[in-house]
Amino acid sequence: MSVSNRHWILRQRPTGMVGPEHFELREAPAKSPGPGEALVRVKLVSIDPANRAWLNPTPTYKAPVMPGEVMHAFGLGEVVTSNDPSLAPGDVVDGMLGWQEYVVLPAKQLTRRDREQPAEHLLGTLGVTGLTAYYGVLEIGRIRAGETFVVSAAAGATGSIAGQIAKIHGCRTVGIAGGAEKCAWLVNELGFDAAVDYKAGDLRKALRAACPQGIDVYFDNVGGTILETCLPAMNLRGRIVACGSLSNYNDEAPGPGPRGLPGVAVVKRLRLEGFIVLDYAETFPKAEAALVRWLKEGRLKAPVDVLEGLERLPEALVGLFRGENLGKRMVRL
Amino acid sequence: MSVSNRHWILRQRPTGMVGPEHFELREAPAKSPGPGEALVRVKLVSIDPANRAWLNPTPTYKAPVMPGEVMHAFGLGEVVTSNDPSLAPGDVVDGMLGWQEYVVLPAKQLTRRDREQPAEHLLGTLGVTGLTAYYGVLEIGRIRAGETFVVSAAAGATGSIAGQIAKIHGCRTVGIAGGAEKCAWLVNELGFDAAVDYKAGDLRKALRAACPQGIDVYFDNVGGTILETCLPAMNLRGRIVACGSLSNYNDEAPGPGPRGLPGVAVVKRLRLEGFIVLDYAETFPKAEAALVRWLKEGRLKAPVDVLEGLERLPEALVGLFRGENLGKRMVRL
Repeated sequence: MSVSNRHWILRQRPTGMVGPEHFELREAPAKSPGPGEALVRVKLVSIDPANRAWLNPTPTYKAPVMPGEVMHAFGLGEVVTSNDPSLAPGDVVDGMLGWQEYVVLPAKQLTRRDREQPAEHLLGTLGVTGLTAYYGVLEIGRIRAGETFVVSAAAGATGSIAGQIAKIHGCRTVGIAGGAEKCAWLVNELGFDAAVDYKAGDLRKALRAACPQGIDVYFDNVGGTILETCLPAMNLRGRIVACGSLSNYNDEAPGPGPRGLPGVAVVKRLRLEGFIVLDYAETFPKAEAALVRWLKEGRLKAPVDVLEGLERLPEALVGLFRGENLGKRMVRL
Repeated sequence: MSVSNRHWILRQRPTGMVGPEHFELREAPAKSPGPGEALVRVKLVSIDPANRAWLNPTPTYKAPVMPGEVMHAFGLGEVVTSNDPSLAPGDVVDGMLGWQEYVVLPAKQLTRRDREQPAEHLLGTLGVTGLTAYYGVLEIGRIRAGETFVVSAAAGATGSIAGQIAKIHGCRTVGIAGGAEKCAWLVNELGFDAAVDYKAGDLRKALRAACPQGIDVYFDNVGGTILETCLPAMNLRGRIVACGSLSNYNDEAPGPGPRGLPGVAVVKRLRLEGFIVLDYAETFPKAEAALVRWLKEGRLKAPVDVLEGLERLPEALVGLFRGENLGKRMVRL
């Protein structure tokens, strides 16, 4: 009684902007779990900028997606059957589930999650996204109350949480986002002190106006010219949290780096540091507890942007690079 | 009985490469020290890449040199007369003495040094140069035995000491320098494990050959294309010590930054960190004690490149950017 598994494969690698033509919907019977494995019904698929980087042939922090293979993605699902004592049917798990309705994975590649939390929270604010914001702000950025904290892609999944965490810790919090609507949302809905619309013209001037005391911590999700524009506004001993490089993920080869590096880093004693949240796995429970507490206290909002249906996976990813989403984008199957 | 003070002023700011035409030799009576001040006879003038950056109108970590003003420089001198109880005639002191034979400064802007040490060591390996290498390698680079350590401008003042300190701590130490002669000197005289001639052609390939295990710490004195070439060879959790940006000091405006940043920093969890050695002043005695011990044990060589005579100050600086020096360049008056 094998179930059918609809799934999206990578048809061909994009060489520039990713589009729906790079994927193909297929259908095949779901596999049966072997010893130590579990069959999982995928419920929510996480749509992340890094997905695009995985489509390039160069390995990132994980192996690239191979043409013909099911598109990789992080996701949340429910255990259907399990051949491992650590998991039981009905358990909510996350892992690299992919763009598909069912997946068979070794139990040790799945993490059991708290069923009491809303599924969207588990994949967003209480998942990799929120944890990335948490460690980026606190461990890499090492913010202090009273400092000025700037985050780019501020209306996105990680940026929207990062800014709120900085605000909770007493920073002047400034978001950079595209469009007046997003900027208003950051200030009115999420409590940012100011927001700067990078599409509105003179970013440098707007940034100076929003950060009269300069920038102490810049949480960089985009790289490129926005990073370049922030550099001259950085204060002595400023920190740049290199979280992502959204502006470059669709490029075939890396473009010129941000003007001013490394000279300005020397003169201002700046630290630019990259990180991958998985390096902090040992302390996830502590971080999750803090995030749950802030959510409960109403100090942290968890904005989500949910699209419905497996069919919409490619457009969900493509739209991410058009800046369509407010908060964490995911697709519900 | 005022003495005559020959001194070099900045005639005009260079807009590109610095040349002798930007300075002018003048003569005037030396000032007399007021209360709390000392008159110092300048003995050795330190010639540093940063001198060039001070000629630009933009402040660096210190105020720029103003046209008409005596050229700023760090140096070593001897107290002639003192109106402050902390200093006595004959004391050896260092400070921002400038390009001149005599200087009057507040005693608190002068640091008394150990007369038992050779003057060249006090200004080089036991001065800002050696301390910069020390803190860059150990505090910013945080090297561990067995790691691969690469330093650019390796035959220069800071690079030559930085490489030896890394070697003392058990690193595979690779120097990047211009020309076969310098490269041979690094390996044969200073004990580097390998040296790469960036003028010889394919730097990327040569670097890969010299660093079969990749680069764990890159001590960057130059920025620009050499930094760019090192980036792809960096190992996970690699560290880039942003010590200087020699390749850019003569530029009017910053050029494009190193290709690959910040993307590669995210993927590889790299840390790029700038520093100024003066931030570590509190622990200088401990660092100096270590440097003195290594010198005494013969594990650290202190190469110096001394030019004789006040007249040669401009050419000494200009030649620094032509890569003339082996080790720490200074001018003896």
